Amino acid sequence: MKNKRPAVEPFVDLGYAKLDLHRAERKGFPEVVFCQGKTPVQVLTIASRLFRTHRRVLLTRVTADTGRRLKKRFRRGRYCPEARLFYAGTIPVGVGLVTVLSAGTADIPIAEEAAVTAEVMGSRVQRIFDVGVAGIHRLVAFRKQIEASRVIIIVAGMDGVLPSVAGGLFCRPIIAVPTSIGYGLNLGGVAPLLTMLNSCAPGVAVVNIDNGFGAGYLASVINRR
Amino acid sequence: MKNKRPAVEPFVDLGYAKLDLHRAERKGFPEVVFCQGKTPVQVLTIASRLFRTHRRVLLTRVTADTGRRLKKRFRRGRYCPEARLFYAGTIPVGVGLVTVLSAGTADIPIAEEAAVTAEVMGSRVQRIFDVGVAGIHRLVAFRKQIEASRVIIIVAGMDGVLPSVAGGLFCRPIIAVPTSIGYGLNLGGVAPLLTMLNSCAPGVAVVNIDNGFGAGYLASVINRR
Amino acid sequence: MKNKRPAVEPFVDLGYAKLDLHRAERKGFPEVVFCQGKTPVQVLTIASRLFRTHRRVLLTRVTADTGRRLKKRFRRGRYCPEARLFYAGTIPVGVGLVTVLSAGTADIPIAEEAAVTAEVMGSRVQRIFDVGVAGIHRLVAFRKQIEASRVIIIVAGMDGVLPSVAGGLFCRPIIAVPTSIGYGLNLGGVAPLLTMLNSCAPGVAVVNIDNGFGAGYLASVINRR
Amino acid sequence: MKNKRPAVEPFVDLGYAKLDLHRAERKGFPEVVFCQGKTPVQVLTIASRLFRTHRRVLLTRVTADTGRRLKKRFRRGRYCPEARLFYAGTIPVGVGLVTVLSAGTADIPIAEEAAVTAEVMGSRVQRIFDVGVAGIHRLVAFRKQIEASRVIIIVAGMDGVLPSVAGGLFCRPIIAVPTSIGYGLNLGGVAPLLTMLNSCAPGVAVVNIDNGFGAGYLASVINRR
Amino acid sequence: MKNKRPAVEPFVDLGYAKLDLHRAERKGFPEVVFCQGKTPVQVLTIASRLFRTHRRVLLTRVTADTGRRLKKRFRRGRYCPEARLFYAGTIPVGVGLVTVLSAGTADIPIAEEAAVTAEVMGSRVQRIFDVGVAGIHRLVAFRKQIEASRVIIIVAGMDGVLPSVAGGLFCRPIIAVPTSIGYGLNLGGVAPLLTMLNSCAPGVAVVNIDNGFGAGYLASVINRR
Amino acid sequence: MKNKRPAVEPFVDLGYAKLDLHRAERKGFPEVVFCQGKTPVQVLTIASRLFRTHRRVLLTRVTADTGRRLKKRFRRGRYCPEARLFYAGTIPVGVGLVTVLSAGTADIPIAEEAAVTAEVMGSRVQRIFDVGVAGIHRLVAFRKQIEASRVIIIVAGMDGVLPSVAGGLFCRPIIAVPTSIGYGLNLGGVAPLLTMLNSCAPGVAVVNIDNGFGAGYLASVINRR
Amino acid sequence: MKNKRPAVEPFVDLGYAKLDLHRAERKGFPEVVFCQGKTPVQVLTIASRLFRTHRRVLLTRVTADTGRRLKKRFRRGRYCPEARLFYAGTIPVGVGLVTVLSAGTADIPIAEEAAVTAEVMGSRVQRIFDVGVAGIHRLVAFRKQIEASRVIIIVAGMDGVLPSVAGGLFCRPIIAVPTSIGYGLNLGGVAPLLTMLNSCAPGVAVVNIDNGFGAGYLASVINRR
Amino acid sequence: MKNKRPAVEPFVDLGYAKLDLHRAERKGFPEVVFCQGKTPVQVLTIASRLFRTHRRVLLTRVTADTGRRLKKRFRRGRYCPEARLFYAGTIPVGVGLVTVLSAGTADIPIAEEAAVTAEVMGSRVQRIFDVGVAGIHRLVAFRKQIEASRVIIIVAGMDGVLPSVAGGLFCRPIIAVPTSIGYGLNLGGVAPLLTMLNSCAPGVAVVNIDNGFGAGYLASVINRR
Repeated sequence: MKNKRPAVEPFVDLGYAKLDLHRAERKGFPEVVFCQGKTPVQVLTIASRLFRTHRRVLLTRVTADTGRRLKKRFRRGRYCPEARLFYAGTIPVGVGLVTVLSAGTADIPIAEEAAVTAEVMGSRVQRIFDVGVAGIHRLVAFRKQIEASRVIIIVAGMDGVLPSVAGGLFCRPIIAVPTSIGYGLNLGGVAPLLTMLNSCAPGVAVVNIDNGFGAGYLASVINRR
Repeated sequence: MKNKRPAVEPFVDLGYAKLDLHRAERKGFPEVVFCQGKTPVQVLTIASRLFRTHRRVLLTRVTADTGRRLKKRFRRGRYCPEARLFYAGTIPVGVGLVTVLSAGTADIPIAEEAAVTAEVMGSRVQRIFDVGVAGIHRLVAFRKQIEASRVIIIVAGMDGVLPSVAGGLFCRPIIAVPTSIGYGLNLGGVAPLLTMLNSCAPGVAVVNIDNGFGAGYLASVINRR
Repeated sequence: MKNKRPAVEPFVDLGYAKLDLHRAERKGFPEVVFCQGKTPVQVLTIASRLFRTHRRVLLTRVTADTGRRLKKRFRRGRYCPEARLFYAGTIPVGVGLVTVLSAGTADIPIAEEAAVTAEVMGSRVQRIFDVGVAGIHRLVAFRKQIEASRVIIIVAGMDGVLPSVAGGLFCRPIIAVPTSIGYGLNLGGVAPLLTMLNSCAPGVAVVNIDNGFGAGYLASVINRR
Repeated sequence: MKNKRPAVEPFVDLGYAKLDLHRAERKGFPEVVFCQGKTPVQVLTIASRLFRTHRRVLLTRVTADTGRRLKKRFRRGRYCPEARLFYAGTIPVGVGLVTVLSAGTADIPIAEEAAVTAEVMGSRVQRIFDVGVAGIHRLVAFRKQIEASRVIIIVAGMDGVLPSVAGGLFCRPIIAVPTSIGYGLNLGGVAPLLTMLNSCAPGVAVVNIDNGFGAGYLASVINRR
Repeated sequence: MKNKRPAVEPFVDLGYAKLDLHRAERKGFPEVVFCQGKTPVQVLTIASRLFRTHRRVLLTRVTADTGRRLKKRFRRGRYCPEARLFYAGTIPVGVGLVTVLSAGTADIPIAEEAAVTAEVMGSRVQRIFDVGVAGIHRLVAFRKQIEASRVIIIVAGMDGVLPSVAGGLFCRPIIAVPTSIGYGLNLGGVAPLLTMLNSCAPGVAVVNIDNGFGAGYLASVINRR
Repeated sequence: MKNKRPAVEPFVDLGYAKLDLHRAERKGFPEVVFCQGKTPVQVLTIASRLFRTHRRVLLTRVTADTGRRLKKRFRRGRYCPEARLFYAGTIPVGVGLVTVLSAGTADIPIAEEAAVTAEVMGSRVQRIFDVGVAGIHRLVAFRKQIEASRVIIIVAGMDGVLPSVAGGLFCRPIIAVPTSIGYGLNLGGVAPLLTMLNSCAPGVAVVNIDNGFGAGYLASVINRR
Repeated sequence: MKNKRPAVEPFVDLGYAKLDLHRAERKGFPEVVFCQGKTPVQVLTIASRLFRTHRRVLLTRVTADTGRRLKKRFRRGRYCPEARLFYAGTIPVGVGLVTVLSAGTADIPIAEEAAVTAEVMGSRVQRIFDVGVAGIHRLVAFRKQIEASRVIIIVAGMDGVLPSVAGGLFCRPIIAVPTSIGYGLNLGGVAPLLTMLNSCAPGVAVVNIDNGFGAGYLASVINRR
Repeated sequence: MKNKRPAVEPFVDLGYAKLDLHRAERKGFPEVVFCQGKTPVQVLTIASRLFRTHRRVLLTRVTADTGRRLKKRFRRGRYCPEARLFYAGTIPVGVGLVTVLSAGTADIPIAEEAAVTAEVMGSRVQRIFDVGVAGIHRLVAFRKQIEASRVIIIVAGMDGVLPSVAGGLFCRPIIAVPTSIGYGLNLGGVAPLLTMLNSCAPGVAVVNIDNGFGAGYLASVINRR
């Protein structure tokens, strides 16, 4: 499907997994390993094989236990327990500022997943947490700092209102991440997802519930543009 | 069920309807006639019979055609086409200010239903329309006026964000009315309903989708308290 | 956004949380701490900092363990295990009666959350529990007592029918709280929520499922009016 | 599948329909023709063929136009426009009283479908309409009459509360029929359906939304028992 | 609300519960205690108090632990672990046959709840389990026995098809109970509930998911008619 | 993506449509034109262009008006108004019997769409309509004929029960097509879809609601195997 | 219902289960035992009884514990822990190739359930796992091998996209199995189910979520055709 | 809320609408007028007033009739009937290429809404329509052209699969727009929305159903970055 093939083979077949070694060439970043539903042994094997080709690796939804095992294998790797991410290898120098806002304290794990992903993929990141609209002056106080960034990621559960308000104030692409944080009729994140999809403020797009990784990835792609 | 019964009979049986003549005594306001699903003749008969006992009548979801027929019967009555309300008889002098906010222009019919209902039930009403959060300075500009009221009704479709923001700014009971105005995944008003139910700002309660009448009624009950 | 700023700074930035110190001024009550999703250390730090400014604090969704820790920090504070609330500091003298009804015995925890919240915010509260419509004479027996109150909170799971019946009997603002109590097709509280939203009896508004706190808060705002 | 077969053939094959001529023997009543989705010619052909064998016929969801055509074919038949039913032939003498309650005026078409079906199948029927719980004394006033019946059918839209209340008062089998009458979040009848399924009052079963025919049929089967 | 009051007081107020002592008079059977969400102590207190007045008591959703405690208090009572029911006191002699069918083996606990409830309320009961339509000759083999009963209860999960098929074969009132048994898109019992509500075979009504008690109760009310 | 490319170009670009001329080679049948959402002119242009290459063409969801226009262009083509299909060109000789069952008369248009599609694609087809389970002997009467076929298509709305029953009787692949025919809580076909997905009888797979075309297509692919 | 009955009795009645001994004759394979919701003792009894008649047995959703017990009873049986299947007795020689594709590594347990079922029922099976569309060249690389099969089973969670893409490439019947694997708004498998039902590529049918058994069974029925 | 206010007043109050004149300064583009739910007179008044300040105006969801009236008022404006957009005034020179892909022909109106919006806001736009995955070589054929763009907008109904496939091939930010085009269980666009949210290919974000305007707006904001 492409004229000039790279030197590496197109994929490695481990039976239970087929590692896509051309992903970095096509997408600008090697295959990221989604660890949920894989055994620790599978994760370690996959990570090692990818690292051999690309000299860097990023894994998501990593449990504390698997994180420890990875740390043993990749001595200079880093496990972020809150973000449930593990990465190892060369991290590019950060260029282009990405701002990660969270509406509440409880949204921070997902916000961290977004922030670390963006950093690993080469963006500079500033975090501004707990600026929900119940006290909107907290958001306004950070206006200048936020406007200095190229992309804004907004992580919010409950009513998911923050992207609508920020979308009325700032002139930057906004990636909204609904979280399953909340109670009552939050519906596992469907409530803030709907709020964000129906936002009256244009310039907002949405990723899946709790998908901090996807937001961080997209922010970096926009940043790199 | 009560010790001292009023002079009027408890209800009138028309076969297809049983008019509750004790409602005014129990609830402080006569039975309001919901016209959807009733024939014009049924509506006229019911309205006339209630008027005979209570000397005033309020009807909701009145079509233009039925409005005209009612106007013929009750010469001094008034039909509000936007709010689809008809009322006739003694309107009490307005006491206690109710503010009705709308997020957008398209929400105005429901906002009017709330406003006129509150007026007919004896509240003073101020209307402030199209103050959605895409330009939040429009809301802030009316801050003083809004704080002068006893109850705030907020009518919003689309993402339904306005009550969350107002709930962070104002110290008054807020009755939120989601509307079916919107497109995409508005889900006939379910999206703003969920936003409002999940609002982080306490002091907000919600009525049914497009139920401007219910909001105006409750505002008056709170007002009268 | 306001002319005359109070002496206290607008908010304190703890990184993971930004405490809104102007909330009391704007909303008449300091920021209430929602503890779900926060670590015990975060809760204690936040509570201490808010208490320093406002001399009172209210926390919701407090686990038994965190309740014990708070009790050590605030010796004169009180933890209500059923309502999962903790509060400390000056409680205003109760004015204006709020009635809290529950349909069943299983709804009592949410009813207690509403009742204690209203008390902490300065309302007098009477509790009348287990008056569901399967034996409607139990509700009717308390008619006089209920009519003596300024606001009625009704907590109900299962079919959520009580607010409709009470709305036909009483002339007071009714705040309905659906609960996730039930089985079969209760849908985690959606069934009683729908019943309440569709209530034929006007004068009823609804808060989120299991949101006893929100109902107690709103009742006090109406009470204070 | 049965030892002694009746004289008539088991079914007639019209190509687009296979008329079940043994239904009367098995179920105690001939096949009822559901007309929605059938052409007038198909309806007439089917009705004529069934009538030839059974000397009576009942058709549901009959449009006014098809009703007129049926009337021409069956001179002594009767079309009920409100219930959208047509029937012709021998109606058994009514035995066993069935009460049909409706919560509101708008529910009457479905209530009539239930009532006429029960009559055609041989039950005596009394109708008591518009006894919703907003004025519960209207229901109580008919208590004696209702308790004289063998089965109670309750037709209700909006919040669907009436069966719960009646279930607490009466000691008779209750068949609840939710209707799609309502507005806001009625969800085409799902809201009252959920209320009825979750009813705390035992002794209540539910048929499909707007299925007055099914309720009348079942009431007669219970009646005949 | 009634002319001649019975000697017993209308209800007992335990604070957390108001026991309806007139239920037996109104409904023909004393208040049944739903134990989910109540503490063992509450259950024992309520059961004892009801037993004192009525000399019999029925409790549903009883855990094994509470069952043991009840057994100590009521030596001659009986706990049915599969049906999670406990009853004590005079059981009337069974009259009128009720058939309880189950589609599968896994549906038996709910079927037992229905069967024991009907027995405790005075019906004779025959159980025919595992007659789902994958082998329809199993159902047909019991045809005579089934037709000897006054009411048929059908308990089915998965696709919920059995009531439709039985409704085409038998001329008795059918009470269908959907169960949450199944996998894939069973949706906690919503799939069989929908099948049953949409059944083409008239003469079928539905109770809530897993509500064996409700079906047994209603069957007895029909039986007693 | 393939070694030996066919002589025809891979696709034709009309701007608003890109006709896939390799589809016949890859899938064994040329691209079928889904007409909904296309203008008559677009449909005619696309059909003509496809016909030029493949000498045959099949179009689905064709309105009567577009059918007439197609008939003018393709004199020897045929429009089936009930199935809303149009086809022209060489029809292969039918091999391998496909049986199309419908549960009711109202399901026939979808059943016809399936039947005609299978015929156009080269299967022999027998139609057996209106064999729903309310009179199960009608289905059993056709047992031999049904077992003579290679594939069974079952079209059913309402409760969607027929595939479960047929799946217990016949040893052939069953393709179930839920239809949006029904009333009450049919949910536009979701109710029978759920019944079919949850069928206890293995050997059943499901296509989209009202997707007679998809069922006929798949039946032919299985047939051709 | 059939002319010539086989020598074995039609079913065995164990009370809690009625074993259908004619299933093999009707359906070409003996009754398969669904173990979820049955006790280990029930499972063992049923398996033994079926084995006695048919000399082979297949059980699904078998827990590790029950698997061990079955292994003791059937020494030459085999338990597949990943697929949660147990089978014993004569396995027919495999004929006709079935390909089982999985989109991801996490989908393998369901894919194995499909593959082993098809093998036990007499099909040859090839497994090609982890060929999701994020790297579509992995699928294309296996093109020849896939086209050599008679039926394709595709197991996919997350976005469920693989059947649509494969449906555009291959000319074989495709049975799609959505899995509950995923996160965010996967909705327990509803998201990939919807994608598969709405697939633009004809020739695809769908079984229930996680129903690998059903897919393997149907593939074998098609294979045997 | 900002230090240096622009010369123009913050908003104009028309009663039914409050025009936000600072939007251009804050967001880089003047307020866009959403015409659904507004009368033609309101639309004309709003458009004229906005034009007076900003010398350009963009209106969405414009009916043909309102389009004609606008054309009379703004002689040099342009109405795009397919996209239902109207714009007038200075259009910036296009910089930065945006590619708009559509999966099918029927998705073109929404794709046009996206394309025209991006053009009016200053992007260069290339359109590639009808490249759905049923014939994936059509997409691959445009690979080079697509990779030349800064942002990719993908408009798809039915199964919504295209963004997942494109996300695996291209290294650009992808904005996915689900459309309500489809049939069966498309659920008004919810099916493709879910597919897109659950896409395994990172780098994809989603806007509301049929929200071509939002996608075009966001693409331009990213483009301008």
